[in-house]
Amino acid sequence: MFIEKFLEVLNHEGVVSIVTCANNEAHVSNTWNSYLVIAEENKILIPAAAMLKTEENININGNVKLTLGSKEVMGYKYMGTGFLLEGTAKFLKEGEHFEMMRKKFSFLTRVLEITVTSCKQTL
Amino acid sequence: MFIEKFLEVLNHEGVVSIVTCANNEAHVSNTWNSYLVIAEENKILIPAAAMLKTEENININGNVKLTLGSKEVMGYKYMGTGFLLEGTAKFLKEGEHFEMMRKKFSFLTRVLEITVTSCKQTL
Repeated sequence: MFIEKFLEVLNHEGVVSIVTCANNEAHVSNTWNSYLVIAEENKILIPAAAMLKTEENININGNVKLTLGSKEVMGYKYMGTGFLLEGTAKFLKEGEHFEMMRKKFSFLTRVLEITVTSCKQTL
Repeated sequence: MFIEKFLEVLNHEGVVSIVTCANNEAHVSNTWNSYLVIAEENKILIPAAAMLKTEENININGNVKLTLGSKEVMGYKYMGTGFLLEGTAKFLKEGEHFEMMRKKFSFLTRVLEITVTSCKQTL
């Protein structure tokens, strides 16, 4: 699911966008590349402190799109690559993944768990 | 409209997300911080090569959200800041702004012009 180049992007700092949509209006929240934790084959965990509107949206429509990239990682032709991830989202408030993440990110109140269905290199 | 800190972010490379929404589905396209050109008091110009779905969406719903940031620029409390811009979008295929942008970015086929109504520092 996650190719080597995607993992390389996670090792370069940058802004991740988390896009949800409900009632025909898109919402974007953001985090850092370095905050994404891969758990299991197709799951990404993200520490959530606020993300209230994201949570409100995914209660209506669980589909989520994430974009991230780095100018410092080689793309198809030039320096700079980017990825578009699609999947479904859920907020964890307890459990093994929640506890593991709380140890890494003391500021979190919940964990945003993305079940990734597609991870495409766009550039 | 654009505070000093926003201009500072433009001077650090990073991934910009451009979010549109039509038919209750969000779409995200991306560009680089360094590709944003401020023109006039409240307009941002972005070179567009593909961005076909973005164009399709804004023909239905012209509202757009942009997010960008940099871990290397000081935020409210810690290193790392981010901005959420809201506005309306239009694709330019000719005119003064189009010609000016084509000189800077030879690869563009159109220019995405954002009329910004709000530019908020989120972190």
